Amino acid sequence: MKCSHCRREAIYFQRHSGRHLCKKHFLYDFEKRVRYAVKKYRMIESGDRIAIALSGGKDSVALTHVLMNLYGSRKDLEFFAITIDEGIKGYRPPTVKIAKKITKELGIDHVVVSFEENFGMTLDEMVKLGDKKPCTYCGVFRKYLLNKTAREMGANKLATAHNLDDETQTILLNFLQADIERLARLIPQRVQKGLVMRIKPFRELYEKEILIYCIVNSLPIDMNECPYSHFPVRAMVRDFLYDFENAYPGRKFSVMRSFETLIPCLREMFPQIDLNKCEKCGEPTPSKVCQACVLLEELKKAKDSNS
Amino acid sequence: MKCSHCRREAIYFQRHSGRHLCKKHFLYDFEKRVRYAVKKYRMIESGDRIAIALSGGKDSVALTHVLMNLYGSRKDLEFFAITIDEGIKGYRPPTVKIAKKITKELGIDHVVVSFEENFGMTLDEMVKLGDKKPCTYCGVFRKYLLNKTAREMGANKLATAHNLDDETQTILLNFLQADIERLARLIPQRVQKGLVMRIKPFRELYEKEILIYCIVNSLPIDMNECPYSHFPVRAMVRDFLYDFENAYPGRKFSVMRSFETLIPCLREMFPQIDLNKCEKCGEPTPSKVCQACVLLEELKKAKDSNS
Repeated sequence: MKCSHCRREAIYFQRHSGRHLCKKHFLYDFEKRVRYAVKKYRMIESGDRIAIALSGGKDSVALTHVLMNLYGSRKDLEFFAITIDEGIKGYRPPTVKIAKKITKELGIDHVVVSFEENFGMTLDEMVKLGDKKPCTYCGVFRKYLLNKTAREMGANKLATAHNLDDETQTILLNFLQADIERLARLIPQRVQKGLVMRIKPFRELYEKEILIYCIVNSLPIDMNECPYSHFPVRAMVRDFLYDFENAYPGRKFSVMRSFETLIPCLREMFPQIDLNKCEKCGEPTPSKVCQACVLLEELKKAKDSNS
Repeated sequence: MKCSHCRREAIYFQRHSGRHLCKKHFLYDFEKRVRYAVKKYRMIESGDRIAIALSGGKDSVALTHVLMNLYGSRKDLEFFAITIDEGIKGYRPPTVKIAKKITKELGIDHVVVSFEENFGMTLDEMVKLGDKKPCTYCGVFRKYLLNKTAREMGANKLATAHNLDDETQTILLNFLQADIERLARLIPQRVQKGLVMRIKPFRELYEKEILIYCIVNSLPIDMNECPYSHFPVRAMVRDFLYDFENAYPGRKFSVMRSFETLIPCLREMFPQIDLNKCEKCGEPTPSKVCQACVLLEELKKAKDSNS
């Protein structure tokens, strides 16, 4: 099949637009849509120092690559990457290696921050000690370290690799579960004192396209799934959206547009609140003590009573 | 299995509440939830003259029955039923018969209004003549006749049998298709000049529960599907919601709650507009000429050029 724009061989059929794209035009389209999202939400502005959340999985590797490609040469911007090593045996080490390799190749600063160093135990140990789900520990502590590290290293923005599939799943999930407050948290560029602003340059790109971007650019791809990954509700929503998109291409964009239409309302319904400083660690929290300190306390007690 | 409230045999397991219900407590719960919805949205108020849209299918038969049961003896309320005979060979006649039977039994006024009488042709003929989908003709002309008849017969409200399944499907469908304006049309009790206010007393009840209500009350049940019924997109959404509800009972209520949370926003985003009078027939329309007159014109032209 030929490319819809030139005479080269197509490598991708973009169903939502009905176009066949060759390597060159795929990359052109991909980068254009990253720039579109960045511009639409003013994700990147002159003077920014941007931390990239780089797990070493395909999405964050592609994100680091495309950001450096598109914005890396700009003198008015700074980038560096943060990798959180949760301590998941077998799963995390290969991606940390990939993260080191890619940042070295791209020539950007890179820090690896581990649960073990910061909390005195790995996620594997937490899971054995505690009674919560692995994703609860991981989510709370990973976000904590990402924000803390980004802020301490002088970043004013934190780029994550959430894509169109991730975002629409979360939007629909929150809608289906009547969690409109959580829906409001997805509003791009929310400013909250103490929290480094999150940006999601891949919010208009399908996961599939990010994979193809990796392949086309010969980027290292680790397709392993986290051994703790277990989201039955999300999986149902993901599968439905997959089938729905498959039957009616472009519907994930519709979900995104629905959400965006509601943003002004959501802002009004859930005005942003200034966060407090955690009484224990000083990190931002809506409560008196942050969730990380609460969980850590529990885990330490469990550890003490075990020994 | 015993009833969760008494020692009688249960006839229904209500998954979202985890209760087993006997016939008596099923009916008690069913009627309670109808009254709850009616009260919540002030669907029925003293002095109302209410037209019931009675197709003769199980949902509208149950609606007529429960409304008469709960409110039929009130001296400050009036009820009558309207059946639209679209002219669908084989499908509609049995339900018209059921509608006549049930209204006679319940002792309420009943009018049957047909497409043929009002538009000079049946739906079957329209489908053969026109190039639109059957549901387009049916939807436009049925709503037209329901509103016109209700208004001419002095009704200030029009009760339809839309249930929780119907409503949540429509809500999700509009959300998935980025049709937030259509989502806003689902706001209960919208007042629009010229349109008789729609009320939906079954909005908090599962379709399955309505079926059980019919069985328990020995109401006539016609389970035939309209031969023109063909909604592939809605069917996907319906099946997903069915599976989702099945895995996580009560989620259809969550969808309803999400929608309700957004109502104040939706009202602001889509303020109600006063409708115009159609230049041809005088019925309410947002345009100059109403959709029914536009379609009828097309059909008449097609008929003339055919003969």
